[in-house]
Amino acid sequence: MRVIDAAAELRALSREWRREGRRVALVPTMGALHEGHLSLVRIAQTEGARVIVTIYVNPTQFSPSEDLAAYPRTLDRDCALLNDLGVDAVFAPKRDMYLPDHTTWVTVDGLTTGLCGASRPTHFRGVTTIVAKLLHIAEPDIAVFGQKDYQQARVIERMMRDMDFPVVIRVGPIVREADGLAMSSRNRFLSPEDRAAARVLSRTLFACSDRARAGASLAELCAFLDASLADRARGELDYAVIAHPATLGEIRDLSEGALIALAMRFGSARLIDNILIEPQK
Amino acid sequence: MRVIDAAAELRALSREWRREGRRVALVPTMGALHEGHLSLVRIAQTEGARVIVTIYVNPTQFSPSEDLAAYPRTLDRDCALLNDLGVDAVFAPKRDMYLPDHTTWVTVDGLTTGLCGASRPTHFRGVTTIVAKLLHIAEPDIAVFGQKDYQQARVIERMMRDMDFPVVIRVGPIVREADGLAMSSRNRFLSPEDRAAARVLSRTLFACSDRARAGASLAELCAFLDASLADRARGELDYAVIAHPATLGEIRDLSEGALIALAMRFGSARLIDNILIEPQK
Repeated sequence: MRVIDAAAELRALSREWRREGRRVALVPTMGALHEGHLSLVRIAQTEGARVIVTIYVNPTQFSPSEDLAAYPRTLDRDCALLNDLGVDAVFAPKRDMYLPDHTTWVTVDGLTTGLCGASRPTHFRGVTTIVAKLLHIAEPDIAVFGQKDYQQARVIERMMRDMDFPVVIRVGPIVREADGLAMSSRNRFLSPEDRAAARVLSRTLFACSDRARAGASLAELCAFLDASLADRARGELDYAVIAHPATLGEIRDLSEGALIALAMRFGSARLIDNILIEPQK
Repeated sequence: MRVIDAAAELRALSREWRREGRRVALVPTMGALHEGHLSLVRIAQTEGARVIVTIYVNPTQFSPSEDLAAYPRTLDRDCALLNDLGVDAVFAPKRDMYLPDHTTWVTVDGLTTGLCGASRPTHFRGVTTIVAKLLHIAEPDIAVFGQKDYQQARVIERMMRDMDFPVVIRVGPIVREADGLAMSSRNRFLSPEDRAAARVLSRTLFACSDRARAGASLAELCAFLDASLADRARGELDYAVIAHPATLGEIRDLSEGALIALAMRFGSARLIDNILIEPQK
């Protein structure tokens, strides 16, 4: 496995693979890897592609009040995990990927205003900008993202479509702990009490999904969601939203299915989770 | 010469050329070609590259009050000129290059606020967005722009740098009519009286350049520029700016050289022109 620090070296390697007739898949991460990330690598590998994992804690997707400095950095361990998995290259730039006078931004309007965008107004601008930069450097055929960051995946998919990126997006399912908690690099910040209480997220989503499958209406689902969350012992709710799965906008019924998405703070950790509801006939 | 309407076909052709070891150069235009555009094609050809000229009147760089509908469209004549020149492919999409729910924008802050950006606040967002789309479709090694649109060239250069586009930019010099008027697709809209009066733009710039070479200070240059423009018979001044050639910001002296840029309206035609002043010791 090649561990690469320089953008030019990564691009040269990717072009070499393409000349050899290989496809190239990119898995962008911020490191602190867990089984969720590793599942994305496996998806990339099933495409028969050379796999590049990028590890870069992107400062522009954090607001000044957020946890950029505290974000976990575990590069050696990350590289060992990826090497064991048979990843072809890791791109882990040591230097800032933004020049001091960087002034270019890629923005996706509409999809970025609700959900996480409401409390993190510049977050998605940072995400789309760094992903576009990484796509220009690595020039992959495929890019893989996780469904846990559902809004992010939709925003990046829209960016790729609107901007004619020659890249196919794959979105891997959420990987969960045994008790249902969605895996996240931020879970390590949870106190034992918060860790136990954080189960409310997945438990609520699974219960909503069960109700929807049993025929609950949108209004019934909303009422149930509110009641379930009101019942929680700990955790500060950021949002609980039932939205259109494609537009992330308001819905009137479940005829086109729904996204149920939650964000909650436990101490310094802001956790998100979501589930997709199938369209109801 | 191939005339291509579909993005996928252009990308396939460009990749074929790259596989054959050829470099690819892109010359983005809005058509209504004149000798200025053709000079950019020749620059692309001197790079030994396959040359793609794009012809697309990009709606997002016009404001609702501007001349999108009236912008000249002369595709058959354009293609004949490019064919005579030995261009390899023309990309002239017949359909809108933006889907109805397009919401992604590439913006370059700072460089876009002054000069043309002051009176055309969404113009450069449209330019950078369409150029990024064209770069993703054509995947060139080189992209060629004209110095007449000096601010545009700087903005695109910055976008390419900030976003790690694997593309080198070339900027071709301004091509002028015999009397000095910078060539522009909008010159055809000038009445005979305005056409004669429009000479004030290049005449003023050349005179400023002469004064600077003779040792005039920035203050003297500013005074001379104001006096020269006050003298004009016709034409509504949009701006007359002496700015830093790289940052387009304010300068205190000519030690790092200067850009002198003018924009003036004659009837429905808004004309721009500029000249670079060498650094003074």
